[in-house]
Amino acid sequence: MKFYCLLYKDFETLDMFGPVEILGRTKDSEMHFLSAEGGIVTSVHGVPVMTEKTEAFAAGSVLVIPGGIGTRPLVQSKAYLDMLKALSDQAEYVLTVCTGSALLAKSGALDGRSATSNKLSFEWVKTNSDAVSWQGSARWVHDGKFYTASGISAGLDMALGFVADVFGKEEAQASADWLEYIWNDDCSRDPFAVE
Amino acid sequence: MKFYCLLYKDFETLDMFGPVEILGRTKDSEMHFLSAEGGIVTSVHGVPVMTEKTEAFAAGSVLVIPGGIGTRPLVQSKAYLDMLKALSDQAEYVLTVCTGSALLAKSGALDGRSATSNKLSFEWVKTNSDAVSWQGSARWVHDGKFYTASGISAGLDMALGFVADVFGKEEAQASADWLEYIWNDDCSRDPFAVE
Repeated sequence: MKFYCLLYKDFETLDMFGPVEILGRTKDSEMHFLSAEGGIVTSVHGVPVMTEKTEAFAAGSVLVIPGGIGTRPLVQSKAYLDMLKALSDQAEYVLTVCTGSALLAKSGALDGRSATSNKLSFEWVKTNSDAVSWQGSARWVHDGKFYTASGISAGLDMALGFVADVFGKEEAQASADWLEYIWNDDCSRDPFAVE
Repeated sequence: MKFYCLLYKDFETLDMFGPVEILGRTKDSEMHFLSAEGGIVTSVHGVPVMTEKTEAFAAGSVLVIPGGIGTRPLVQSKAYLDMLKALSDQAEYVLTVCTGSALLAKSGALDGRSATSNKLSFEWVKTNSDAVSWQGSARWVHDGKFYTASGISAGLDMALGFVADVFGKEEAQASADWLEYIWNDDCSRDPFAVE
């Protein structure tokens, strides 16, 4: 399975690399890093990651979108949102963590879907689309080809949930054990719920 | 506080970026990425990170060392271990995650110290030094300037423990909440203990 991670300036570090740790362990996985401009993209904590341009995205693969403060200018850019919507349309699955779902929602890709997001930023998230059924109590939400996680560390639980759905629960549990991680395997159990 | 993360080919992704998420949020933090050769260094899951050469390390700062399968060739390299020991000697604090402690132990830096490591690789870890008091049941161990964590996700709990020790427990709990993360704040509570 091919995973394409879409980076931008000031993405939240763990939003991206929690899921990468888990998705990157799946059988025959390929992990790619993309950005609008290509080249080095730096997380909000200063991690400089080399990326390819988004033209490298392969239709039928998995798109993974982190959140972070860097989403704030991007939701104002029609060109960025159009590019994101086009990638999402071509993807077999789309996974977002934290405010990555706000960005995806603003592009229109989540219209008519249920989704969740970071709970500390939930009011802002909701301003980006009223065509989404926002879930204030969910560790992650799976609706069709879309998986959306709550804040930052929830990306670990969602990625394990995705692995469970696609590769089986045993595979997901084996990954959690490998990480020495106590997986919250119930997407409805949200210790940080806002409603 | 200046943090220097020491990367090498095939480091474990979350070992590095879990702590970076937490340490990078501390007041006035500076995050740097180093490697023996400089340039792009790729994690075992294919994350390409730009690094500076280890000569850029600033004495009196914090050295952070991930684990991963990439430690296996490095414990055979006297030149690498000598470089690592020299960095460790100059650091105010040294933090390792997972088998990063095996590498540090092999350099001699942990002689006479208590330490822990990845529990699935614990037998191999112990072969790297008999001068370390290896703890088979510990989420993380703090001994003097050294903090060593168990496998992969334990780096999150240890980094929060470090923040609690240096910046106060409230600061650490605020970070855990920001991450929507249920912190295992008791370093002696190890769900993956091997003894």
